[in-house]
Amino acid sequence: MGLLDYFRSSRPKGSASVAKERLQILVAHDRTQRGRPSYLPQLQQEILEVIRKYVEVDMNAVSVKYEQEDSHEVLELNIVLPDTAQGRI
Amino acid sequence: MGLLDYFRSSRPKGSASVAKERLQILVAHDRTQRGRPSYLPQLQQEILEVIRKYVEVDMNAVSVKYEQEDSHEVLELNIVLPDTAQGRI
Repeated sequence: MGLLDYFRSSRPKGSASVAKERLQILVAHDRTQRGRPSYLPQLQQEILEVIRKYVEVDMNAVSVKYEQEDSHEVLELNIVLPDTAQGRI
Repeated sequence: MGLLDYFRSSRPKGSASVAKERLQILVAHDRTQRGRPSYLPQLQQEILEVIRKYVEVDMNAVSVKYEQEDSHEVLELNIVLPDTAQGRI
């Protein structure tokens, strides 16, 4: 399955008719050293800071998901961006 | 399919026996304004800079993949990290 397919399938159902500006960031880490503490949470914060240089991010519109299994960990950030294309009526 | 499954399935086949420290970063963007230039390439550079604060990254060990379709774009960074766990014999 291609990347585009994955992200397409991960969109919330029923959202097709409501086009939203969205940004998803995934960070996956395969670790060989399990003893070390994970740096993904800090990395996530810094990546979020970088993104805020480019787009306005409402922190209430950010959802974070973290999964860990054995030596594998994945961090997912889902950000709904403000819709600047359409003016308010 | 869960995130962990996706990343597991995207691993190179036959790599199971050779445990590598790896980092994958995906940035997906659903755009409502197609006219605007993409900021994903610059974002990728800055994210890479952030990662280099945490781990040593050999730029030769970074592979980049970019896919775009309609208003959807995905950027993938694959980084093989230096294996610091095992000493050289």
